[in-house]
Formats: sequence, C-alpha cells, structure tokens
Amino acid sequence: MSKTYAQSSPVARTLEVVGERWTILILQELLRGSHRFADLKESIQGIASNLLSERLKLLEKNGVVERKFYSNHPPRAEYYLTRKGHELGIVAGALAAWGAKYVSDDVVLVHNQCGSVIQVVYYCPECEEQVAGAGVRLMPTRRLREKVLAKETVSV
Amino acid sequence: MSKTYAQSSPVARTLEVVGERWTILILQELLRGSHRFADLKESIQGIASNLLSERLKLLEKNGVVERKFYSNHPPRAEYYLTRKGHELGIVAGALAAWGAKYVSDDVVLVHNQCGSVIQVVYYCPECEEQVAGAGVRLMPTRRLREKVLAKETVSV
Repeated sequence: MSKTYAQSSPVARTLEVVGERWTILILQELLRGSHRFADLKESIQGIASNLLSERLKLLEKNGVVERKFYSNHPPRAEYYLTRKGHELGIVAGALAAWGAKYVSDDVVLVHNQCGSVIQVVYYCPECEEQVAGAGVRLMPTRRLREKVLAKETVSV
Repeated sequence: MSKTYAQSSPVARTLEVVGERWTILILQELLRGSHRFADLKESIQGIASNLLSERLKLLEKNGVVERKFYSNHPPRAEYYLTRKGHELGIVAGALAAWGAKYVSDDVVLVHNQCGSVIQVVYYCPECEEQVAGAGVRLMPTRRLREKVLAKETVSV
C-alpha cells in the first residue's frame, strides 16, 4: 500500500504513484527495454525480489505498467509501459540530465542522432518557443476552461 | 543520513539527493518563493518539523539549498535554492505536467504569457529541435570526449 501525502497538488499525487524508493529506477529499466522480472531484477542492482514485485503491482494498479503473459504453464509475464507510463519517461530524463550535470560526471544524456548533450525544457506549443521555469505556473483547470470559452466567444 | 542505491547511474545518484519522501515538495515550495521555515512548514501540509529540518540540511549539504541568516539574535535563517537547485525545477515541472494530465484534473501547468498548457520535452541545442524519448540515450563521458576530439581533429 502506498503512503499518501496530505496534499492534492499534481506533484504530490504523482509522487504517490512514482515517488516510492526504486520506482523511478524500475521505470528507467522498462524504458530501456527490459520486460521480464528476472531482467529487471538483474539490471536494478540491489533491489529485493519482493520489493520489485510490490512496486510492479502498484505501477500496474495505477495504469503505468501492464502485464502480458507469454507462457501459461508455468505462468510467466512480461511488463510493459502503457502510454501513461511512457509519458513518465521525461521525469527519468530530467533526473538523468540533472544528475549527469551535477552528481555523476561519467555519463551524459545525448541525442542519438548527433551525439550532443540533450536538455530537458519547458515548451509552449501555442507560442512555439521554449519557456523558462519562471514563465510557468499551475492554474486551476476551471479558469483555463473559462479562458478557452472567452476566446471562443471572441472568435465567433 | 540518506539511503544509497547500490548503483551509479545519474538517475540513481540524483535520487540520493532528491528521492527522499517530501524532498520534491520542499523544492517546489522553494521555487514558488517560500524561504522561511515556518512558511515552508505551513505550505507543505502534513510535514513534521523535524523531517523538514532534516531534509533542508541534506539539501544544503548537497549544494541544492543555501541558508542565509536574516537575524542573529535570535538566529533566524531563510532558505534559497542555489543554481544547482534551481535547475532541479524541471524535475518538479515534469512531475507536475504528468500529474496534471493523468492524476489530478483540477490544475494544469500553463505558460504565464499566453495561458496555454506547457509541455516538458527533450531539446537538442545543436540540432535546434525537439527530440522524442526514443532519440535520447545515456553515453559515457569518455566517449563524448573522444567524439569531440575526433571532430576537432577533422576540422583542423
């Protein structure tokens, strides 16, 4: 059972899903293409089997991972990220980019195609530009709806 | 004392700095402009004083936060993010963007200027383009250095 933060911010709620110890590392291995329990256990040095099993169940319950059986006798499953799970990849990417810059100087996050160091940034698809952290805020959805509605009224 | 993951990946090392329960929420409040202990405690519902104090000390030890005294009698401090700490903001942003999309439908992450929903993406400054998760990988720094060296040799 996951602990809960007494908060309703999206960050707090996301941490309820992926904030447990080891979970991001499991996510990272799934992104890298490990799908079987034994492979995950081998790749994530130091994780105990019962803990890996428990975290995978929690991720499945939260719709981040799905289990597919590749053998019925004996029952053997593979774990795959759902679309919702794949979209968490950028969280692991942001941790990796920061870590590569500040705490781990032996690896860097690079662009496959050109080999340059990759950045993780805010992007506004409407303005088609990068946005600095100070230019971003959380807004209640209700106000966003009102804004869209106001825009629609103007454009009619 | 922070627990350690038996791993040396930048994600694992970053989690040693910010992966403890509550730490990302403290980071989020510092980014929002809370600097005093009492304000942080009030903003982060449910956090115990000793835990907040311990996390702030760990963040200070890791160079993410710095303490500035604004009164000597009695001693009173404010907490500020260092540059290293500010650059962790995108991790909180990535968690918030995902959370707003999948687990918390009452808020969204928006661009201050135009009010549109913000994305968190990989960006290659060399190619000046966004890159999908599949187009990004971790590479040993040594190989990057060799590559840069090879490029320099060619261009001479």
